[in-house]
Amino acid sequence: MEGQDKQTTSAKAADDAHADIYGEDGAVLSSFLAQIGAAIADRDTLTLKREVDDLHQSELGDLIEALHPEQRRALVELLGADFDFSALTEVDEAIRMDIVDNLPNAQIAQAVQALDSDDAVYILEDLEPEDQDEILSQLPFTERIRLRRSLDYPEETAGRRMQTEFVAVPPFWTIGQTIDYMREDKNLPDRFSQIFVIDPTFKLLGAIDLDQILRAKRAVKVGEVMHETRHAIPATMDQEEAAREFEQYDLLSAAVVDENERLVGVLTIDDVVDVIQQEAEEDLLRMGGVGDEELSDSILATSRSRVPWLLVNLLTAFLAASVIGLFDHTIERIVALAVLMPIVAGMGGNAGSQTMTVTVRALATRDLDIYNAGRIIRREMGVGFINGIVFAVLIGIVAASWFHDPNLGGIIAAAMIINMFVAALAGILIPLLLDRFKVDPAVASAVFVTTVTDVVGFFAFLGLASWWFGVR
Amino acid sequence: MEGQDKQTTSAKAADDAHADIYGEDGAVLSSFLAQIGAAIADRDTLTLKREVDDLHQSELGDLIEALHPEQRRALVELLGADFDFSALTEVDEAIRMDIVDNLPNAQIAQAVQALDSDDAVYILEDLEPEDQDEILSQLPFTERIRLRRSLDYPEETAGRRMQTEFVAVPPFWTIGQTIDYMREDKNLPDRFSQIFVIDPTFKLLGAIDLDQILRAKRAVKVGEVMHETRHAIPATMDQEEAAREFEQYDLLSAAVVDENERLVGVLTIDDVVDVIQQEAEEDLLRMGGVGDEELSDSILATSRSRVPWLLVNLLTAFLAASVIGLFDHTIERIVALAVLMPIVAGMGGNAGSQTMTVTVRALATRDLDIYNAGRIIRREMGVGFINGIVFAVLIGIVAASWFHDPNLGGIIAAAMIINMFVAALAGILIPLLLDRFKVDPAVASAVFVTTVTDVVGFFAFLGLASWWFGVR
Repeated sequence: MEGQDKQTTSAKAADDAHADIYGEDGAVLSSFLAQIGAAIADRDTLTLKREVDDLHQSELGDLIEALHPEQRRALVELLGADFDFSALTEVDEAIRMDIVDNLPNAQIAQAVQALDSDDAVYILEDLEPEDQDEILSQLPFTERIRLRRSLDYPEETAGRRMQTEFVAVPPFWTIGQTIDYMREDKNLPDRFSQIFVIDPTFKLLGAIDLDQILRAKRAVKVGEVMHETRHAIPATMDQEEAAREFEQYDLLSAAVVDENERLVGVLTIDDVVDVIQQEAEEDLLRMGGVGDEELSDSILATSRSRVPWLLVNLLTAFLAASVIGLFDHTIERIVALAVLMPIVAGMGGNAGSQTMTVTVRALATRDLDIYNAGRIIRREMGVGFINGIVFAVLIGIVAASWFHDPNLGGIIAAAMIINMFVAALAGILIPLLLDRFKVDPAVASAVFVTTVTDVVGFFAFLGLASWWFGVR
Repeated sequence: MEGQDKQTTSAKAADDAHADIYGEDGAVLSSFLAQIGAAIADRDTLTLKREVDDLHQSELGDLIEALHPEQRRALVELLGADFDFSALTEVDEAIRMDIVDNLPNAQIAQAVQALDSDDAVYILEDLEPEDQDEILSQLPFTERIRLRRSLDYPEETAGRRMQTEFVAVPPFWTIGQTIDYMREDKNLPDRFSQIFVIDPTFKLLGAIDLDQILRAKRAVKVGEVMHETRHAIPATMDQEEAAREFEQYDLLSAAVVDENERLVGVLTIDDVVDVIQQEAEEDLLRMGGVGDEELSDSILATSRSRVPWLLVNLLTAFLAASVIGLFDHTIERIVALAVLMPIVAGMGGNAGSQTMTVTVRALATRDLDIYNAGRIIRREMGVGFINGIVFAVLIGIVAASWFHDPNLGGIIAAAMIINMFVAALAGILIPLLLDRFKVDPAVASAVFVTTVTDVVGFFAFLGLASWWFGVR
């Protein structure tokens, strides 16, 4: 009962607090921030504890992100044992590292024990191996073993994201026994939506959802009510793949098993929601030519991380420039070509990136597969051709009247049709090919597509012009 | 008990089926597809029912998407009352409409009754108002009222996505009474993770998570254990905002209330996961210049939906071209400028879109707010300046040696620094301004940013050159 009452109180408090700390724009209220800032400056631990105690971990995380770096460190220091470390799972990696690096390992070890194992792993995994070892060595035996096991799984796997606290019972127990066990055991996880059924060697036999337990009669044996665990997730499975299982089968939680089918943890939907967000974000950032950067990264770190992409683009830009260089005599004679050529290349680039965006997204969601690839390729070719004609007519008319030369209008129109069609083909075939060769299409497609549309655009337009006007 | 046994069997079956229908690449196995195709061709209803009965709704959805349009319609027709309509919530809108439009309204009405209300609304909301009315008129009174109420809420609100089936009890009931009620009532939702506490007017008083019920003693009153419902969601709240609440507070389900605080439904995490996916996808597609298109759209529909974006880009391309036109005499004299100018504009465009991507994403996740905007703007200016210098040196050296002219190298280097710096500013300020004026930054940023980098790139490079070489 104790646990419940506590939860009820903090729930109410969180509700009140929520109304308090955010403004209409969704950002932390500046008045609240000023109040906390003043309390930090005064080293007024009492006020700080009162204000911060009521916050949900994500609210505390938002508060920390809104503070200055020195204030953050001071806040954690002043709160001491009252600081809720789970808030650190809600902030940027750079901010987390900055705070954790400033704390003695003994304090981290203390704090980590109060966390769910998945949150503890989240904080520990970014530390240096020596710090990790030192912190783990200060933990009780079972805690240490559990966290070590999670940390031993590769990054971004289900084993890293799982929670090692779960309820597991033998199949010969009755529903009544199980309910009584849950009423009395104090070491249960905070929240759970299913319990697992295991044999004496921890091998997973099945699972029961809580609503099923509630609907079953007390005398019924667990083994009779349980369902086989469809979708048990191997601990080494990539987190993205695990998230896909959750999405497809609308799971709330799933058993995580080791290579011997033994239950080692449980993956819950709230962690999966974070994974889904993260993966969608990764695709978006990669298509925009930025890697795993965070808002809290420094100027130099950001600048360095963006150079490789710009460098690749520079090489392709020189490639396109050298295509123009082939036709320098033509441009010298008809300077209008220099004025118009970026239009042909640019429109091709835009059309190509439209197709590419759709393709990359469809590949990520697995909506595009061998059954519809043929149809989608034909569709994109059709779209490229139709839009090519539409814009060829438009641009042809404008160019012809701008430079009072119908020949120029005809040439740019022809070049547009060619480039828009090629753009559509490149926009779909390049991501498909990259995917086939196991290269992430979100990362590499844009460079290849714009290279193709630049080179083809300049070559088609200038080539047609020098052939028609007889210059070389 | 009946319900449970059914669930257990179908769970097992789904597990077997899952292993069967997908190949290693995650696509539906072609052998399975061929088998279904043959059964459809033979109008072999028995085989079809046997094969399809075991599938999870999302597996059936994947199967439908992999079939040809005529096969899809035939499959639904052959399965008749055995077709699980919830599979239609898992397929593209165009495919869903194609199937539903081919069915008599009476059959849809029949099918809709077997669905959870959120699935029913999902299928009904895209239909013509007359068809909706006809279908609703054939439903029992309570069903009709419930669905009508959901459909009356605006699109993309919590009211549209909520489920109207839920468990609600009065506060004076004991935990024991509540458990007994859940054991006996056959009309409970399929799955639920919390129950609600209401007064006689359906006003929401609180909620209890199932694990709390299980841990409480039978004699305890519901009113004593319940927690106040933090995060009750108004039915008119935008689904994206509701999803944000779920994410921030790690909710599994939340009460949906009308304007009088009366409980009207429950929003569950599986629907929210779909919303999160959808919103992340929208941002990605918008930044790539494509709207709400789906893979199943026709050539003409796709082509039409992409024209507006291309048209806007065409206008800005002409703007950039007219900037080049200002310097036609300079280009006539020094044709190398025409060769090199796309490099300056293109590199600026890439750098600008890196900054823009980060900014748009940070705005969408609310990571960028008034507290860090100043810092991020300064950071981006720093990054733009540093990378500007790095690439200015690189390009300057290459250009100088390519055209054997150190002047040209110096000019392009200076233009690069200017354009990369302006690109960084545009990449962050344009999305921030659009957001301030309530225009979706994902849609409009790219056009403005590339316009700025094109115009500034051409103007800086050609302008510097004509000033330095004294041509006009």
